[in-house]
Amino acid sequence: MSYRAPVSEMVFTLAHVSGIPGDAVSVEDAEAILTEAGRLANGVIAPLNRSGDRHGSTLADAAVTTPPGWREAYRAFTEGGWNGLAADPDFGGQGLPHTLSAAATEMWNGANLAFGLCPLLTAGGIEALSAHGSDDLKARYLDKLVSGAWTATMNLTEPQAGSDLSALRSRAEPVGDGTYRIIGAKIFITYGEHDLTDNILHLVLARLKDAPAGTRGISLFLVPKVLPDGSRNDLRCSGIEHKLGIHASPTCSMAFGDGGGAIGWLVGEENRGLACMFTMMNSARLNVGLQGVGVAEAATQRALAYAQERRQGRAAGDTQASPIVAHADVQRMLLTMKAYTAAARGICYLTAAALDAAHGPEGQAAADRASLLTPVAKAFSTDIANEVTSLGVQVHGGMGFVEETGAAQLMRDARILGIYEGTNGIQAIDLTSRKLPLAGGTTVRAQIAAMRKVAEGLLKNADPAFGHMAPRLRAGIESLDRATSHQLAALASNRPDAALAGATPYLRLFGLAQGAACLAKAALAADAALKAGETDPAHRARIVLARFFAENLLPAASGLEQAVTEGGAFVDEAAVALAS
Amino acid sequence: MSYRAPVSEMVFTLAHVSGIPGDAVSVEDAEAILTEAGRLANGVIAPLNRSGDRHGSTLADAAVTTPPGWREAYRAFTEGGWNGLAADPDFGGQGLPHTLSAAATEMWNGANLAFGLCPLLTAGGIEALSAHGSDDLKARYLDKLVSGAWTATMNLTEPQAGSDLSALRSRAEPVGDGTYRIIGAKIFITYGEHDLTDNILHLVLARLKDAPAGTRGISLFLVPKVLPDGSRNDLRCSGIEHKLGIHASPTCSMAFGDGGGAIGWLVGEENRGLACMFTMMNSARLNVGLQGVGVAEAATQRALAYAQERRQGRAAGDTQASPIVAHADVQRMLLTMKAYTAAARGICYLTAAALDAAHGPEGQAAADRASLLTPVAKAFSTDIANEVTSLGVQVHGGMGFVEETGAAQLMRDARILGIYEGTNGIQAIDLTSRKLPLAGGTTVRAQIAAMRKVAEGLLKNADPAFGHMAPRLRAGIESLDRATSHQLAALASNRPDAALAGATPYLRLFGLAQGAACLAKAALAADAALKAGETDPAHRARIVLARFFAENLLPAASGLEQAVTEGGAFVDEAAVALAS
Repeated sequence: MSYRAPVSEMVFTLAHVSGIPGDAVSVEDAEAILTEAGRLANGVIAPLNRSGDRHGSTLADAAVTTPPGWREAYRAFTEGGWNGLAADPDFGGQGLPHTLSAAATEMWNGANLAFGLCPLLTAGGIEALSAHGSDDLKARYLDKLVSGAWTATMNLTEPQAGSDLSALRSRAEPVGDGTYRIIGAKIFITYGEHDLTDNILHLVLARLKDAPAGTRGISLFLVPKVLPDGSRNDLRCSGIEHKLGIHASPTCSMAFGDGGGAIGWLVGEENRGLACMFTMMNSARLNVGLQGVGVAEAATQRALAYAQERRQGRAAGDTQASPIVAHADVQRMLLTMKAYTAAARGICYLTAAALDAAHGPEGQAAADRASLLTPVAKAFSTDIANEVTSLGVQVHGGMGFVEETGAAQLMRDARILGIYEGTNGIQAIDLTSRKLPLAGGTTVRAQIAAMRKVAEGLLKNADPAFGHMAPRLRAGIESLDRATSHQLAALASNRPDAALAGATPYLRLFGLAQGAACLAKAALAADAALKAGETDPAHRARIVLARFFAENLLPAASGLEQAVTEGGAFVDEAAVALAS
Repeated sequence: MSYRAPVSEMVFTLAHVSGIPGDAVSVEDAEAILTEAGRLANGVIAPLNRSGDRHGSTLADAAVTTPPGWREAYRAFTEGGWNGLAADPDFGGQGLPHTLSAAATEMWNGANLAFGLCPLLTAGGIEALSAHGSDDLKARYLDKLVSGAWTATMNLTEPQAGSDLSALRSRAEPVGDGTYRIIGAKIFITYGEHDLTDNILHLVLARLKDAPAGTRGISLFLVPKVLPDGSRNDLRCSGIEHKLGIHASPTCSMAFGDGGGAIGWLVGEENRGLACMFTMMNSARLNVGLQGVGVAEAATQRALAYAQERRQGRAAGDTQASPIVAHADVQRMLLTMKAYTAAARGICYLTAAALDAAHGPEGQAAADRASLLTPVAKAFSTDIANEVTSLGVQVHGGMGFVEETGAAQLMRDARILGIYEGTNGIQAIDLTSRKLPLAGGTTVRAQIAAMRKVAEGLLKNADPAFGHMAPRLRAGIESLDRATSHQLAALASNRPDAALAGATPYLRLFGLAQGAACLAKAALAADAALKAGETDPAHRARIVLARFFAENLLPAASGLEQAVTEGGAFVDEAAVALAS
């Protein structure tokens, strides 16, 4: 069972859940573009996923070799123009909306997470350079990144500075000719070295001499592997990690300036490097959420195909061995996988649509909405990716534990998603402490109001196929509303820990309510289509799935609300329980 | 960070949560025995866990080589008499209670899951042979298994017959001299071949000629690797699996009778093989639950040690980088790990205590209680083992994804526990369809009444340290009670699927309520000890942990109840949603 890009489901979600900017691209155009992208994902990128895991990327003499077929696939990807889908046409991009680019990102990563990660890093580099690079730097490098001729990396982490960038020690010294010498060691640098392109542009956080301590003394530099004069810069890959998953994606330790200093150019202003990183962080975090959606979709497809094939036991009413998809318990697992995946897709596309809308008349309110939704898109989608890929193993039974089946790889690969680009704990803290207070709380209240509107639409729909969907959605949204009030009140008090203690269950609750609203919106659109005479069986499937989510997964909301509003006492006593 | 057997927590749980049969062994004796076992687990078995994962067991010329140090550790284990802890003294066992043996089993597996699995299989063989073997077979083989001089295997699975044993095809033909020739291929045979002992006793399910179809035509045979005359039997290991985890435990494909037939002896009666398997299944399932507790404990210890060491960011009130254990979100993860582990331990020891009590005056009622609790002990403990080991990776951040750290191995190893010895879906079906109806439902009602008694004890305790523990426990138990009524009513109707649809959330709900009751019982005992003047800080920790569980994890009960009682409609429509 190989991955098939779920083009029609993606297009339906774009058209009926998130919306796409109609002036930029029609639904028909979106479908044509995604169908073409799907061909590349299914036919070229997905077939390298298993072999890439087995081979892995290897390091010898500071050079990294990607697995067989990787270079050819990357060439097909860039020659198709897919790398610059959302980028500025002035630099060779296609200028398409974030929503469309989100669907494409889901595809590359559903096909092959280790492969999809490389252009994802380049996308971050494009954003940083576009927003903060000088005209000269842009002219020299941006078109190379947009075309994918060269790739970009993010050099943040150091051994003593993971989530905490204030502890960063890499340093930069001005040479006097406008360049800087960069000296320092970085770890966990994704695609820090590889053989896919002739050059790699490293975006490196470092401190200037006499810079303020902490995060206000960090600057961002562009440090190319190959200098403009064709010579090699003073930087090298000193090691690659032996990891649980994404074996084909080289995770490098990088040594800058062992020979005296790697030459780099300042991006943005001195000591404002963190602000530059934040620019790209929102879209990078959304992209990681989309990786979660992609790998969850891949696991769901694989498990479903296995369950339709594998015969074991007799389901109620059958006279011979049934395919295991006929057993109620297996159905529960598969529906859970499918429903979580669709909910996460809805949330991620909604976030991309808010980014698109920020460029339109809605402006700042949409930008704030994107900021609010981003940590949910990242953390909820990647949490469910872990759960869905683990369920994928479970559906396979003993075969799931055998590596050859491929289900286990998806679980191993997915495990990094909740950790990198800000751990999911950090996403939860970001949501509670920085995003809820946005615009005095009106951003989150508006988002809850939008969910309520969907619930009202359900209440008007008396179709028995919707079951308890309306009251469950209503109850979930009210739980979220009360929990939101609690978090805002706790923040306003002088006990921030009381808010942080509930940050993780609060994010999950937000994801469940928002995800249920997305699925309900899809179900209402499907119902309308059926009533208008359309016969696509996928419409009925959407209603069943939304109902399953509302009746079986969303009820967790009440317990999460209780954990947020009444569970935080542990912060005063955790030290006692964790002393040993 | 290496595993340390949590002896004092085990002894406290035995003394105050499950109880141990006081006539068989005193609490002081139990502590002495477990302290000694802990020395072996910590000093000899745990140090082989990481290297065992890296080396794995290897196959060459049908011979399996275990990793370096494995043979010596196994010898130390058997020479210490640990293999026969609970076995009949007539055959060299120590005849100690199941409760004590449960704690020891948790230890071996907490130290090293791949190692602990080998004696776990032998324990199953001892049970089968003790209960069903002829006097002649017992005399010839039982003392060898009890001492651990030889090991046992379970040969159930065939490629077409995983969970569904009725599809089994291996066959047996009587030779005429009391022996049988066994011919067939088996897969997923744990320790089917190895170099730890001179002989291996394979317990093999096969069909006699003209046996009834389905599970009523299966017989059980003892098929030794080396025959009594010293010659090799006609069986061999034809392959070992490349697995996600437990790399050091060889998972073998076995070929019986390629040369005409492997010689075997009938265990029990012809066509009654499945009944023989069921005898050992209860204790084997409990042991797998204990594997879950052990690996969850190991992951918790490792994560806690890392969180106390690793400094990142400043917790509220700190002026320099704090150890991450000071952050509320990390505390939530660690308390979740610790609380789930302690809850699962309580449930497993309670199940073992019911097995002990079945030999006393309580008799059948206790045996039924053990039957009721067994699927919960197996599935809840192994589900939380997956969650806890995954949280263990998360606490480590990026380092958790790097294999050298060891956190990822625990997650990979744990993943098999929910699959083998009956998938957790099958445990849930067993609980709902076979265990709830036991003794006309009085078994489950009595168990719920026992939980209520703990809740009443809490209500009498007005100590503010208990927070919302009493009302939360009460609410969780009432959710379980209503869900139980729903499941029993659904079974009694002619819609078994309506009960099966909710089987998995029902089991989780049972585990949460029972686990919370176990922790509350421990908290009450700890509170009494503190009030009696004891100063052990572990007592306060037990109260904090029980409160955390009740206020943060148990609230999921209400959503689970709703999924059980109102979520089952999907069985009528799942085919629509899963068509593609």
